[in-house]
Amino acid sequence: MSEQKNIYLAAAQAANWAAQCLQKAGAAPAIAEAMAHHLVAADLLGFRTHGLMRLGYNIRCLQQGETRGNGEHVVEHQRAALQLWDANYLSGLYVVPKAVNAAISMAQQCGTGTVVIKRAQHVAALAVYLEQAIAAGMLIQMMCATPGQQAVAPHGAKSAWFSPNPFAIGVPTQSQPILLDISLSMTAAGKVRQAIAEGQPLPYPALITAAGDYTTDAATFMTEPASVLAPLGGRDLGYKGSGLCLFSEIWTLALSQFGRHQEEPNIAANTVWLQVIDPSTFGSLEAFQAQTQALVDGMKAATPITPAHPVRVPGEGALATRAQQLQQGIAYSPALWRQLMKVAQQIQVPLPTSQNLRAEVE
Amino acid sequence: MSEQKNIYLAAAQAANWAAQCLQKAGAAPAIAEAMAHHLVAADLLGFRTHGLMRLGYNIRCLQQGETRGNGEHVVEHQRAALQLWDANYLSGLYVVPKAVNAAISMAQQCGTGTVVIKRAQHVAALAVYLEQAIAAGMLIQMMCATPGQQAVAPHGAKSAWFSPNPFAIGVPTQSQPILLDISLSMTAAGKVRQAIAEGQPLPYPALITAAGDYTTDAATFMTEPASVLAPLGGRDLGYKGSGLCLFSEIWTLALSQFGRHQEEPNIAANTVWLQVIDPSTFGSLEAFQAQTQALVDGMKAATPITPAHPVRVPGEGALATRAQQLQQGIAYSPALWRQLMKVAQQIQVPLPTSQNLRAEVE
Repeated sequence: MSEQKNIYLAAAQAANWAAQCLQKAGAAPAIAEAMAHHLVAADLLGFRTHGLMRLGYNIRCLQQGETRGNGEHVVEHQRAALQLWDANYLSGLYVVPKAVNAAISMAQQCGTGTVVIKRAQHVAALAVYLEQAIAAGMLIQMMCATPGQQAVAPHGAKSAWFSPNPFAIGVPTQSQPILLDISLSMTAAGKVRQAIAEGQPLPYPALITAAGDYTTDAATFMTEPASVLAPLGGRDLGYKGSGLCLFSEIWTLALSQFGRHQEEPNIAANTVWLQVIDPSTFGSLEAFQAQTQALVDGMKAATPITPAHPVRVPGEGALATRAQQLQQGIAYSPALWRQLMKVAQQIQVPLPTSQNLRAEVE
Repeated sequence: MSEQKNIYLAAAQAANWAAQCLQKAGAAPAIAEAMAHHLVAADLLGFRTHGLMRLGYNIRCLQQGETRGNGEHVVEHQRAALQLWDANYLSGLYVVPKAVNAAISMAQQCGTGTVVIKRAQHVAALAVYLEQAIAAGMLIQMMCATPGQQAVAPHGAKSAWFSPNPFAIGVPTQSQPILLDISLSMTAAGKVRQAIAEGQPLPYPALITAAGDYTTDAATFMTEPASVLAPLGGRDLGYKGSGLCLFSEIWTLALSQFGRHQEEPNIAANTVWLQVIDPSTFGSLEAFQAQTQALVDGMKAATPITPAHPVRVPGEGALATRAQQLQQGIAYSPALWRQLMKVAQQIQVPLPTSQNLRAEVE
């Protein structure tokens, strides 16, 4: 029965423990803290595949020197509203928030501020960086691509070319913010891996097999020849998703000139595009917020197909999950908890003891 | 038999005739010329629902004073890299190219340049504005929304809230440019109207009926209660398309503060977002083009599901159509030609005579 129980951990405890682990793995204190904070932020919002589930991976990357534990990014090129940063294999979890700040400063001066970051290690969920811009009264748009990865088919193909590219926006309203974080393929690689781990099929056919058929069979993603992720839009409209993937890879990889035209093999790191806009360039922030509030109010007022399922605004579910977990603690499944115990044992930083935990039946 | 034949008209002839019509309807010469040029440019690229098919509409708008035939836009607000323009009901076909130029200048200074244009009348196909930026060695991204229009359902709804919002990018490569111009819904309103005119069903279920069912029956779009356009992604993934529509409306309508939170009724005009990026901020244009070429080469090298249908790059079909029509003349269907003859008669500017035409069997 105890195996059925989730383990609850306060966010601060989780972040504190993770930061200690990362520091022991070689990260400078400020870097360890930022990495831990943004992994736990993903757990809080319910983005499980981008949370502490990836702590072990981040520790290994630090230990093996794939992720740098010290140092800072370099601003390689810049004009007043656009900068290229080389993260030189620092963690995205540490560098991206700094880039958001730089973009905010540029937007205050120029109306918009854009940073493209190349060679950033683990970026996790784009959703965790959005509120930093929103708190400054800004809109933010983010994209991320991985030059060394091919997982998404162009429309009409059964072999992969694009990486699984997330797209995110954050926007202030008069109520809670809009937080959109989607992949431009029919599903994300993390969700396929999760389905494989759970022995479940995908909820809809999002993979294209080597035979050219759409399938829900997640296991095909790991066979040889492997299936590939279908672009958003599927059979009929995949040219739209494929076009959006191309958009993402041009705005990240091509623009940074660290893209698919590259001699260097095995480029594992990511390229991030982020752009902040200061809506007060065009009038008061309050007037802008009245417009965004009207947009979400109108969405929610639309007639639902199923009355029991009213229309939701992007971020609504994630923010509710966070509010609940800030109250009750972050819920870690027994399987994930065992994984974290293994990490704790290997790095020799004990997990918070049971007196700090609250075990509850799901 | 003659009714089966397309009528071929040289692009310059078509544009010259259309400009005369628009001038007679009240447009100043430079405005009439820009309007005609960009409508014909849409025909050349094969965007039929945005070409001379809409000339009569533009003439009526000028005659009724809904579209201004004289004057210039006003720059309402600006910082170094961001401007808000009020087109004050000038044609988008005239104002948008000017905004692209302004954005190019800002990008040369700041790395990026963005113009948001409110109250622009007919914008037609975003695709026709892209090459202006590409010719300057720039990337361009464009979006357009219509504050007075509701045609696209938010995900989970069977009533409309968003306008049909196009999204476009233009990018230079080492070969022909990338031109992407898609709607963020499952189909565009123009395509539904075309299907109705032809008495054909849609090629896939892209409409949601008042009963909440997906349908290919285009006629339902005009019945009462009418069906609405489904967001890109459909039943399973419509939250992605719905999120992208929201993105589009925030970046256009909310940012311009001329959005859905508005007292003024029957706002027919459009809001355009366009952003130009100067890739030479980060290195040579040539190095950037090598990256974009690698991206399109990789797309085209992907293994097709159907060997007879290799992967195409966005814009490939449109550019081939244009090349052919520049050679052979623009092909106008007999039905459209009759419509243009009616326009010619009403405005009393004769269509180019048969000696200037080339009639060929399709």
